[in-house]
Amino acid sequence: MRRSSMLAALLVLSFSAAAFADEGMWTFHDFPREQVKRAVGVDLSGAWLDQVRMATIRLSNCTASFVSADGLILTNHHCAESCLDENSTSGQNLVADGFLARTRERELKCGQQIADVLMQTENVTAKILAATAGLAAKAANDKRKSTITQLEQACEQQSRASKSGPLKCEMVDLYEGGQYWLYKYHRYTDVRLVFAPERAIAAFGGDPDNFQFPRWCLDMSVLRAYGADGKPAATPAFLRFRAGGPKLGEAVFVSGHPGSTQRLLTVAELENLRNHYLPRWLLRSSELRGRMIQYGKTSPEAHRIVEDPLNGIENSIKVRRKQLDALLDERLMKSKGDEEAALRAKVAADPALAAATGDPWGDIGRADARGEQLYLPYLYMEQGAGFNSRLFSYARTLVRAAAERAKSNTARLPEYADAALPRLQQRLEAPVPVYPALEKLTLSFSLERMREWLGPDAPIVRQLLATESPDTLAARAVDGTRLADPAVRKRLWDGGTAAVNASTDPMIVLARDIDAQSRGVRSTYEDEVEAPIEAASEKIAHARFVAYGTSLSPDATFTLRLTYGTVRGWSEDGHEVEPFTYLSRLFERATGQEPFRIPDSWQQARAELDMQTKFDLATTSDITGGNSGSPLIDANGQLVGLMFDGNIHSIAGDYWYDPELNRAVAVDPTIIFEALRKVYKANELLSELGAK
Amino acid sequence: MRRSSMLAALLVLSFSAAAFADEGMWTFHDFPREQVKRAVGVDLSGAWLDQVRMATIRLSNCTASFVSADGLILTNHHCAESCLDENSTSGQNLVADGFLARTRERELKCGQQIADVLMQTENVTAKILAATAGLAAKAANDKRKSTITQLEQACEQQSRASKSGPLKCEMVDLYEGGQYWLYKYHRYTDVRLVFAPERAIAAFGGDPDNFQFPRWCLDMSVLRAYGADGKPAATPAFLRFRAGGPKLGEAVFVSGHPGSTQRLLTVAELENLRNHYLPRWLLRSSELRGRMIQYGKTSPEAHRIVEDPLNGIENSIKVRRKQLDALLDERLMKSKGDEEAALRAKVAADPALAAATGDPWGDIGRADARGEQLYLPYLYMEQGAGFNSRLFSYARTLVRAAAERAKSNTARLPEYADAALPRLQQRLEAPVPVYPALEKLTLSFSLERMREWLGPDAPIVRQLLATESPDTLAARAVDGTRLADPAVRKRLWDGGTAAVNASTDPMIVLARDIDAQSRGVRSTYEDEVEAPIEAASEKIAHARFVAYGTSLSPDATFTLRLTYGTVRGWSEDGHEVEPFTYLSRLFERATGQEPFRIPDSWQQARAELDMQTKFDLATTSDITGGNSGSPLIDANGQLVGLMFDGNIHSIAGDYWYDPELNRAVAVDPTIIFEALRKVYKANELLSELGAK
Repeated sequence: MRRSSMLAALLVLSFSAAAFADEGMWTFHDFPREQVKRAVGVDLSGAWLDQVRMATIRLSNCTASFVSADGLILTNHHCAESCLDENSTSGQNLVADGFLARTRERELKCGQQIADVLMQTENVTAKILAATAGLAAKAANDKRKSTITQLEQACEQQSRASKSGPLKCEMVDLYEGGQYWLYKYHRYTDVRLVFAPERAIAAFGGDPDNFQFPRWCLDMSVLRAYGADGKPAATPAFLRFRAGGPKLGEAVFVSGHPGSTQRLLTVAELENLRNHYLPRWLLRSSELRGRMIQYGKTSPEAHRIVEDPLNGIENSIKVRRKQLDALLDERLMKSKGDEEAALRAKVAADPALAAATGDPWGDIGRADARGEQLYLPYLYMEQGAGFNSRLFSYARTLVRAAAERAKSNTARLPEYADAALPRLQQRLEAPVPVYPALEKLTLSFSLERMREWLGPDAPIVRQLLATESPDTLAARAVDGTRLADPAVRKRLWDGGTAAVNASTDPMIVLARDIDAQSRGVRSTYEDEVEAPIEAASEKIAHARFVAYGTSLSPDATFTLRLTYGTVRGWSEDGHEVEPFTYLSRLFERATGQEPFRIPDSWQQARAELDMQTKFDLATTSDITGGNSGSPLIDANGQLVGLMFDGNIHSIAGDYWYDPELNRAVAVDPTIIFEALRKVYKANELLSELGAK
Repeated sequence: MRRSSMLAALLVLSFSAAAFADEGMWTFHDFPREQVKRAVGVDLSGAWLDQVRMATIRLSNCTASFVSADGLILTNHHCAESCLDENSTSGQNLVADGFLARTRERELKCGQQIADVLMQTENVTAKILAATAGLAAKAANDKRKSTITQLEQACEQQSRASKSGPLKCEMVDLYEGGQYWLYKYHRYTDVRLVFAPERAIAAFGGDPDNFQFPRWCLDMSVLRAYGADGKPAATPAFLRFRAGGPKLGEAVFVSGHPGSTQRLLTVAELENLRNHYLPRWLLRSSELRGRMIQYGKTSPEAHRIVEDPLNGIENSIKVRRKQLDALLDERLMKSKGDEEAALRAKVAADPALAAATGDPWGDIGRADARGEQLYLPYLYMEQGAGFNSRLFSYARTLVRAAAERAKSNTARLPEYADAALPRLQQRLEAPVPVYPALEKLTLSFSLERMREWLGPDAPIVRQLLATESPDTLAARAVDGTRLADPAVRKRLWDGGTAAVNASTDPMIVLARDIDAQSRGVRSTYEDEVEAPIEAASEKIAHARFVAYGTSLSPDATFTLRLTYGTVRGWSEDGHEVEPFTYLSRLFERATGQEPFRIPDSWQQARAELDMQTKFDLATTSDITGGNSGSPLIDANGQLVGLMFDGNIHSIAGDYWYDPELNRAVAVDPTIIFEALRKVYKANELLSELGAK
């Protein structure tokens, strides 16, 4: 522990000088093999990296991995919860009861899911910088966006003609504008559900235990990728389980898609998060949590309907409140200030660099101040905080897609560019259930908060609520709309501008009536806040490269990364937290009441179960949201765990990595096999997983 | 405006050197007559001060004033809302419909209300300091409390024998331990409801308009004090209305009971509020707001039941979130830091003072750090955050009162000292309605959050929720208890320890089972956090007196204060906000939907109403919560307004007074008379108010 203590002290003093301990969400194309070798004594070969990359999957909001040659996918239960929810009815609750398809014919379609595998990457930084060179911030921002659209479109067109087959091309911005890469994916759009345990064991302890360790969660589910031919995908690059799991102190690796970190933000940006964004978000979401919980008490069906969105909100509340704690921690802000001062000193010491850099930190501070004036209308009108409703989202998508598709590809809002349309259409036409009572709850809530925060005399509020209350408007729009029907949505999509303009559907009318105002708010925000911040961030990124090269890993961007670490606990208030948990304690800790209730299936199998089975485990891996479902891999490329969470200290990892306290949490393979064998008797699945 | 701008700039630089502009919540016994004369050109006589003091009333959580010689009391609607709520039933909603007693016989008892008038004050600082001299922090804290109990008891005993008649004696701590005063009140315990308008006009604009100006609220109600003989109290010292209201720029005074300000806190204490207390409070309360709103939608009766507590929570949320904004404002923290540094420099420059003072700022920082370790259990177990329920409060009061009354007066917890018992009994035995559904909602909510914040493995959580969920425990305790019946509570009170120990009432059992643990948490907190902070605060207060005398007013303590100011608007984002509003705009702004719905009574009287009637007005008075219902008084001692709110900037007044932006908001007498005459045709009331 001495070494880490020293490193932690260094970290506070000088965060940016180099990567420490197990910090770093590294790209596969810039993976620091030498550093890893020194740190954990493992030299990862090119073949290892290729195999792991090809076996790692990006789901719509999680990570997963192939675990058989027939497209079998392992991920978390909470990553499949939306799919379980979509396939549930008032008579059959798959979230609560679990699911097992004993034959492939019985596997259930996840209507909105995708599975992406990263096939190629291409550095296009020079092209972007050349396109925007010499332009002022607003013009550069517009040009950057249209160039990105062009490059993505060209990439997809080329791929269709090549032997690799069609690829999804997405621009990735690394180091806050420091590098631009085209990431090229093979995309599966037909993903089906194979297995999920009951939520009571997948998320034993529920929200109280979330982001805690020790834990006892079988947070797993199994999906399968299907090809365009409707057959299980052939996936020769898959990971094999090492059924006994990893050892204490063993070097382990996590391949996955960390969603977002903010370690390279300026102090002004962090203060903006701390002073404005996080407190407001927490206020809104805590109230919505309360509304949902109370609604869920009105009937068992209401409880079922609200469970999935409520889980999502409670998870996010825990994340955001610990983020706020981190930003209120003086040590963190001091470290960020020191880091910024060190970089600024290096810039000032180099006259050419100083001239090229200017004062981007000041520019960001000024843009943030302007942003604070523009943010609330932007948040409520354009970012959806005022219109929290799936039906409204459909309506806005239909209204905007009709208008945007009539324009040239590069003139569109980026989310309606050609490359984005297939995914948009998939989501729009997916037959997912819509619950009117929940829609009214969220829409009324969000309209009411829009009125509170923009004020009753704001033009948009006067326009919408001149004679209606949030409740009556929400009820009229939700009860009157037909957009819950995928066929209606498809007709409006296919009908384009004419169909949308002719529609009298109240949700379409609502989206249409506020569209011009909302677009106006957005373009002002983009021109006066986003554009100068982008321009300034590029300058800071350039300065940072000159000063430090790529010795720091880029912030997470929900793109493929590899982290290294070891299986290890930590010290909390003077006592040691062991890195493994065991099945016996699960039964001791159960109360019989949700969320501490053990499912009947486990109670029935109790006598057969080996109480010494390892359950969950902790590692020093530097991961974050988006890594859920990631494979934990050993030096030989074998699967030794399924990441599903971090400890409470890991949340501050958004801003910095603390090697003393930050721990990732995984399901141990031992409990996976024990449960599949004795509780679920999932013999077909065990056999496909190669279990003896 | 020049003068104020300059003063605002000074304020930022050097907040503590003297009182500026209209800042200051002054005691009547240290009222700065000369300063007021210079500032607003009015010399208030001793007779003026006596008359105003005797006419000003402290209600249980508000201010009020006598407005006739027969005990008629003017206060806000929101100060009488609990009384309206208590007197409502599912068939008759006085909060929504309003109330008018056309004869005295029809006036309705407010079971929990009191009306206190300050008769005498006595400086006892020397006695307290002598009692605690030379003691260490914990011993001094204990001794201070027992001395306070003794002095209050002796004061009440003496008063019973004197010609003034029995007085309520309460110790007041001014300047955070700098001065101790006995405040001696005449207390009316029989307060009845005479008039209240509909809530829709009293709180037109509801929560969205709360803390906003311009406003259109008739936030008034009329009560009456009755003597022990059951007859209306004789109150010769009352305030007469000046029916036309005040003029623009006129000097005006507010007499009242500002509840609490924190302008003299140290930087460490402010950071503690900012980093811990306020974010947690806001998270909890926002969720409870959501639960209450959603519960209110389940039926009209649920809506009625939840309205009063919901209004209270929404008001507090707005206050706390603007307090957090203020503490996140770097200007404020810089100013506080500078102020603290200036005082510390003065201390350091005076060797004797430095020796006597030590390092109380450091002591407070260390006590806060220890407090952060102890706070959550203290908050949830002892301060009620884990047991949010009226029925539980009854149970705890009964359990503790039985144990405490068996002890000597000075050995008791202070809230059970002899001087406190009559009020405790009044509240305990008041026949107020208890709603089981609401009790279950709040109790389940608070148990659930206790589990979240203390963790599922905390001993208290394991004890309470080993086999129950928050919902099932709350349902069992609420459904099983008989404490909703005042007669049952009275029997348990009268039965003392034997009755309480023999009780099998589940709420009593719950309170009894956790009492030892909860007392233990409290005494640790008091010894290790409160005691060193009290000791340090006394030292800082002493240093501040040496440096500045009493040129600053003490922080608000819900005791009688007088502020001076003028009728004036302010400048907001470059446009001027006028200090008066008029009736015409009320009708333009109405939407027909709550909370922007004008009551039918006003719609029916609309044609008769003078649309140019002044409605609400803004002044520079330095007031805060607790001042609600305060009289606004002119230089001649006439009533020219009824305070009911502040603008949004006034909330930062908790920490500093900003003369540029901080405004208090009152109802203009003109609309009061127009409404009583034309809408409510309250001729008896008008006649008693001396209207022609």
